[in-house]
Amino acid sequence: MKPVSIGLLGLGTVGQGVARILTRNAAEIERRTGCGIRVTLAAVRDRNKAEALNLGIGITTDAQALVSDPSIDIVCEAIGGEDPTLALLHSAIANGKHVVTANKALIAIHGNELFRAAHTHGVTVAFESAVAGGIPIIKALREGLAANRIQWLAGIINGTGNFILSEMAEKGRRFDDVLAEAQALGYAEADPTFDVEGIDAAHKLAIMASVAFGMPLRFDAVYTEGISKVTREDVEFADELGYRIKHLGVARRRKDGVELRVHPTLIPERRLLANVNGVMNAVVVYGDAVGPTLYYGAGAGSEPTGSAMVADIIDIVRALDADPSHRVPILGFQDDALKEHVMLKTADYQAAYYLRLHALDQPGVLATVTDIFGKLGISIEAILQKEPEMAIAGELTEDSIEVPIVPIILLTRRVREGLIEQAIERIQALSTITQPVTRIRVESL
Amino acid sequence: MKPVSIGLLGLGTVGQGVARILTRNAAEIERRTGCGIRVTLAAVRDRNKAEALNLGIGITTDAQALVSDPSIDIVCEAIGGEDPTLALLHSAIANGKHVVTANKALIAIHGNELFRAAHTHGVTVAFESAVAGGIPIIKALREGLAANRIQWLAGIINGTGNFILSEMAEKGRRFDDVLAEAQALGYAEADPTFDVEGIDAAHKLAIMASVAFGMPLRFDAVYTEGISKVTREDVEFADELGYRIKHLGVARRRKDGVELRVHPTLIPERRLLANVNGVMNAVVVYGDAVGPTLYYGAGAGSEPTGSAMVADIIDIVRALDADPSHRVPILGFQDDALKEHVMLKTADYQAAYYLRLHALDQPGVLATVTDIFGKLGISIEAILQKEPEMAIAGELTEDSIEVPIVPIILLTRRVREGLIEQAIERIQALSTITQPVTRIRVESL
Repeated sequence: MKPVSIGLLGLGTVGQGVARILTRNAAEIERRTGCGIRVTLAAVRDRNKAEALNLGIGITTDAQALVSDPSIDIVCEAIGGEDPTLALLHSAIANGKHVVTANKALIAIHGNELFRAAHTHGVTVAFESAVAGGIPIIKALREGLAANRIQWLAGIINGTGNFILSEMAEKGRRFDDVLAEAQALGYAEADPTFDVEGIDAAHKLAIMASVAFGMPLRFDAVYTEGISKVTREDVEFADELGYRIKHLGVARRRKDGVELRVHPTLIPERRLLANVNGVMNAVVVYGDAVGPTLYYGAGAGSEPTGSAMVADIIDIVRALDADPSHRVPILGFQDDALKEHVMLKTADYQAAYYLRLHALDQPGVLATVTDIFGKLGISIEAILQKEPEMAIAGELTEDSIEVPIVPIILLTRRVREGLIEQAIERIQALSTITQPVTRIRVESL
Repeated sequence: MKPVSIGLLGLGTVGQGVARILTRNAAEIERRTGCGIRVTLAAVRDRNKAEALNLGIGITTDAQALVSDPSIDIVCEAIGGEDPTLALLHSAIANGKHVVTANKALIAIHGNELFRAAHTHGVTVAFESAVAGGIPIIKALREGLAANRIQWLAGIINGTGNFILSEMAEKGRRFDDVLAEAQALGYAEADPTFDVEGIDAAHKLAIMASVAFGMPLRFDAVYTEGISKVTREDVEFADELGYRIKHLGVARRRKDGVELRVHPTLIPERRLLANVNGVMNAVVVYGDAVGPTLYYGAGAGSEPTGSAMVADIIDIVRALDADPSHRVPILGFQDDALKEHVMLKTADYQAAYYLRLHALDQPGVLATVTDIFGKLGISIEAILQKEPEMAIAGELTEDSIEVPIVPIILLTRRVREGLIEQAIERIQALSTITQPVTRIRVESL
């Protein structure tokens, strides 16, 4: 059988990982597939730089020529971005080529149209590498847990964010300080917004939710909150209460709709997910038959990402000349069986909540606060009242003087988020409350 | 498309799980596969008991008739044991039926011949449920990590054993005491040998190793050591040194051969695997490209096991009328590309070691012991010398009196097991050593 020919778009960190793995493990992979798999051509911007890598691959600067080259069976995209990537993938698909991509933003935002095009042309689009790097989480959701009605999933799916929170928790460091180090180490981009504000995690969450629930991609419906407001104090108070703060992507399918949310989350410290530290990723998936399962590994990097792309390539190679009906559908559900789901509004989300209040050190404050919760029917799980600290109450003015301020930490039971918002509004209206209430969601998983 | 017809051998805990999942999640599964999947017939021993379950399934007591029934596409085996199960599966295969089985002993011992028969008849044998229950670990090894040369794997793959060790560690209980409770709770069989002595784990390890390394099943080559000799003292000393004791199955592929071993193991307490407690299972897999990945979930139970069996069924259904070459091969490697590997002897295993010695409280004992290690070129990582305890030295006789005995705990660096055995022999020959040396392997993972 003649070797399968791969065209590589991009020869950066990820592209090189794919090329290196296919070369180094060629014999082992051929034992698996029964045929060779070769990267025959790579499209790059800088020909000299690419040739200096000495990978033994044909090099072109004409990406359009690569995606229309009749000798290429599978196009493997590792350039990222939207333009010209999206157009190139559409060309590849129109030319009858299967596509493997690590481009989470592209899949999250343009996946629906790409998948329709692939369906029309009888090819597949594979994106294991777009979520949680080398962890085969898409395969687990799409195939390994296919017997289940998946009820929810929750994951640490951004390594940079997890590195920052881990350092804050383990070493008592401040957010800005760790972020600066992460940038120096190359974990975080010069513009860290995508990682730190949760946009990258939201892309990945949207993709996982579609595969888990069998629905079109709904990146637009993901509620996204970053970690830049998580303070060292919150990390410490959470610890005192037996929790760790992690930046989670959570997708939950309820009777009345779907919650898609990315935000800092308190997790009980005994949970495995609470003990996933540094740049590692992990996802917990809850299926109605299997119960909770967890998948852990490197969420990024040249070869971990390459590992996932090459696994996708191998899947495609096994069924290269099979009837498309014998392939696993792109989202694991038949293309015509995807279901639109109701996307719940944040007020309808359900979680437990960690609230941090700062009150004047006066008798009766706690009673007033707990009364607000009682009237709204919100049960309190735990209260932590700390020693008063001297601080300025309210806005800083010429007349400001320091007064004793008491930090109060509350953990609620599981409740509708709309109710918590009402409680916070009422609490903040109290004259004894000196600054905005901090609210972090709690998931017992 | 007409529904796919499943014949179920056995309608006990696992068989009922399969039937329940296929009924409850019929709509979701049909969205995935594009066709219905029905259990049409179940073969049981006790017809009345089966009919009382009211599952809406045809019932027969003639298992042989089921495996030759031309209307049945896939035979799903959930009876366990070897006789008549093996003959029934051979019949099913000879009749052109795909086979799904949860029978780890059968696969570990007779897998090679079953797979050959399946190859001859153009059908597949699927056994995701045979290892680690609902965790899709076979799929991860066979497909998700297919880009990798898998270097090693290590797993907690027997829930009963892990329950016992977890209780010993968390509550300071003794082995016998927890075992009795596990039996009362139904976690452990009346004859707990298979679980406690590691035979069940050895079956599962043999299966994972074949899928990971692409080699025929070699259950005969698995070194197996149970947990019945793990004492509360060892659990406590391990804790003091920053380790937990877990019963692991370890498969390692080295240049000179393969280690297949099941034994109690010290793991650094910060590792996720060290924090897998109770009846849960977890497996760490190390691939050359992806690095370490971990898979966690329920290792047994009606629906977790059923989840894995139904996932296998769905995989088969997707490619039911495809050419066999388009299916993933049974072990993930082409049937004719499996490689016999050298099976290493225990003396050639490599690990670090925890040793517990009991010595007379005399000056110079520790120097004599460390001298033995030094002469053998074994590096010591840590030494813990405990307070003397009054105890009988050696055999109990009429003249026995209690003398002060010092427990000494040593952790070695990574070394050939043959050297450790020599060291232990020399230590035990010392007149100052009062009882046999305890030896537990240490893996840093």
